[in-house]
Amino acid sequence: MEKKQKNRPLVIGLAGFGTVGGGLLKVLESNADIIERHTGRSIVVRKVLVHNIRKPRGALPEGAVLTDNPRDLTDDPEIDAVVELIGGIDAAKELIDRALDQGKHIVTANKALLAEAGLPLFQKAFKKKRIMRYEASVAGAIPIVQTLKESLAGNRVQSLMGILNGTSNYILSEMTTNGLDFDVALRQAQSLGYAEADPSLDIDGQDAAHKLVLLIRLAFGVHYPFTALSIRGIRGMDRMDITMAREFGYRVKLIGQARIVGDEKPENGLPRIEAGVFPALVPRRYLLASVGGSYNAIRVEANAAGSLFFHGRGAGDLPTASAVLADLMAVARDERPNNTGFVAQDLPVATVASPEESVSPYYVRVMVADTPGVLRDISGCMAAEGISMAQVIQKSDEGSGVPLVFMTHETSAKAMRSALARVLDLGILKQSAVCFKVLP
Amino acid sequence: MEKKQKNRPLVIGLAGFGTVGGGLLKVLESNADIIERHTGRSIVVRKVLVHNIRKPRGALPEGAVLTDNPRDLTDDPEIDAVVELIGGIDAAKELIDRALDQGKHIVTANKALLAEAGLPLFQKAFKKKRIMRYEASVAGAIPIVQTLKESLAGNRVQSLMGILNGTSNYILSEMTTNGLDFDVALRQAQSLGYAEADPSLDIDGQDAAHKLVLLIRLAFGVHYPFTALSIRGIRGMDRMDITMAREFGYRVKLIGQARIVGDEKPENGLPRIEAGVFPALVPRRYLLASVGGSYNAIRVEANAAGSLFFHGRGAGDLPTASAVLADLMAVARDERPNNTGFVAQDLPVATVASPEESVSPYYVRVMVADTPGVLRDISGCMAAEGISMAQVIQKSDEGSGVPLVFMTHETSAKAMRSALARVLDLGILKQSAVCFKVLP
Repeated sequence: MEKKQKNRPLVIGLAGFGTVGGGLLKVLESNADIIERHTGRSIVVRKVLVHNIRKPRGALPEGAVLTDNPRDLTDDPEIDAVVELIGGIDAAKELIDRALDQGKHIVTANKALLAEAGLPLFQKAFKKKRIMRYEASVAGAIPIVQTLKESLAGNRVQSLMGILNGTSNYILSEMTTNGLDFDVALRQAQSLGYAEADPSLDIDGQDAAHKLVLLIRLAFGVHYPFTALSIRGIRGMDRMDITMAREFGYRVKLIGQARIVGDEKPENGLPRIEAGVFPALVPRRYLLASVGGSYNAIRVEANAAGSLFFHGRGAGDLPTASAVLADLMAVARDERPNNTGFVAQDLPVATVASPEESVSPYYVRVMVADTPGVLRDISGCMAAEGISMAQVIQKSDEGSGVPLVFMTHETSAKAMRSALARVLDLGILKQSAVCFKVLP
Repeated sequence: MEKKQKNRPLVIGLAGFGTVGGGLLKVLESNADIIERHTGRSIVVRKVLVHNIRKPRGALPEGAVLTDNPRDLTDDPEIDAVVELIGGIDAAKELIDRALDQGKHIVTANKALLAEAGLPLFQKAFKKKRIMRYEASVAGAIPIVQTLKESLAGNRVQSLMGILNGTSNYILSEMTTNGLDFDVALRQAQSLGYAEADPSLDIDGQDAAHKLVLLIRLAFGVHYPFTALSIRGIRGMDRMDITMAREFGYRVKLIGQARIVGDEKPENGLPRIEAGVFPALVPRRYLLASVGGSYNAIRVEANAAGSLFFHGRGAGDLPTASAVLADLMAVARDERPNNTGFVAQDLPVATVASPEESVSPYYVRVMVADTPGVLRDISGCMAAEGISMAQVIQKSDEGSGVPLVFMTHETSAKAMRSALARVLDLGILKQSAVCFKVLP
């Protein structure tokens, strides 16, 4: 009895009662015994903030009330922590900022906010000695934030690479496995609830980019400005390239990648970080190539641990709630605030390596009218930029021209861009060249 | 300057200067800057305990001295934490016990000790309010201890399944990929340093079983007695079964598995846990089937997170050192002692489900003299125990008899044992029947 009095519940205010908010309420109820076994405390929801208080919703936990006024959460002295699941940037930022001012701990799943405008919030959390945790922002149930913050803290991370957007992966998987066209696969993703009515954030790569910026922060201990990131999505992906990639022994995946280039431990300053989101050909033997449907996965290379690979549900009510709950339980255990894993909570700005200098093998497809001399001319354009071909496949005319597909040896993005400009100048292309990086 | 004075180094005594000990010294040196960026402290090795002080070894860190007297570690008032990497049970147990008595924190990679005789040590660590961490004991660099303790703490874990012994996996991979016989693959593993001169712990399943007991403790919050575990290794694995498994679309892997059977949350008491180590046929589409060489992998199913999969180096100097270092950094951050992830550090004993009642599909191979009527007779033995056949392959005579191979639908281990006794009674077997579980 005494013990129960000592361990008072962790009281939370929940902002957002959508998919993840609903999932969190479910898990808080079904796993209440587990939560108490692990932390010695219960987690109690006092208030749930919604936009429209009249909209019919699922049942609230006993004792919780709905409100449409953010101040009811941020300013309630009995609330210990605010869980921000409303998404978007402005309103969420205001909510978190105010909640920090009022001494609340924060748990958020808001990757867009943290990646694009998180810096002042991280700084405020540090100044106010509040916990701000965000495991659910990246890769759903995969505990990659925790892993980078603590388990790999003694490692020099060399690279990380992930499938960070489930919607894109679902579309690419359907195109690969069932031969669907992009538009059909996208509509299917939308009808299953994997993609929003406006799918831009997913298929144009921004969502993956938001997550990548958060991972870079944790892995390399630097602030990588979102606007410095090179981002390319999968919009308009042609089924033909997925088929050709298969013939070469690859799967097309939307990859978020960050790696140290050059000296890992330069005498002066920070190592250079090359980072980007792009569709790439992934060798079939890679575990990343086996990631199907809406799953997420992350591969980390670190100088002591070697290669680590994590795979799990990147979205959905319960998987995301699992990550939110892990953060809440850390708050309940009264962990020391540390939002970066590093001693310095105010991290230096990254030394950004130019995407133009990024080196990779490439996949290129051009559609040409006929082929005598064309392969020679195109090889010539490549050679003029120092690019050598590794493999070539030429297909028969499909009406829209003859597809000529080749893989190159490693070259820079800049050289490839120049070579493709030369190819364009040949005046023989029936449509724009298609070009993807290939993972070595 | 002031800050440096405040953050005095974490001073450690290292017991054991073998592969992992040497790896730890390397990483402590190469990653000293990273360690300090993450914890605000440096980690300093004061003493290294070895068995034979005269044996030539790698260089010691500056200021460290060799000793062959355990008391030099355990009783040195300047040492904050003892890293136990000597392995084995008795001497390691004595060392840790004494170190705890002297108020030291413990980081250990000793799965055998913790699984077979860890209980009093966990209890003492709890009583003395000391940290005892053991990430390196299970699956090398994969942060599965941390994940179960914290990231999945809000989940009801339903099952976990892993490839926990790199040596066995290396042998099976070589048999699968290069068609080697067991003995040849084992000798190859020994010559590469993956297997000990006496490989029993690895190939008979005990090493995987030690790790499984530790995972059960973390995932289900119970003490599962090592002696209650059903253990079968891969010794004497016949190449023919690996080939047949491939024909059915499977890979043979040494699996450690634990799962809740029956009610997940029984009114009275604890859920029943079925656990064992056994070679099994894994469907090729599973990520577990793709785990090659000496890698480890673990799949966890939990009621909120869903299915999670972790893959990484299960052994080796630097990967294991990475896990030891993560634990040391937790000590350096002055984390609250918690050796189980649960509030109760003195966990209840598991309710053990009888391995006899374990239900699974099975793979069975028998060698018979000739086949007319034999398939009927064997099917009859199976049917008498309520077992139905799912697929049958019959091969031509290979000199030692005709292999008759079949996969069954789900049945209990007990029914399969009885059915195989009936088959034996037929008096038609040219050698003992081979029987493996099949993952569904």
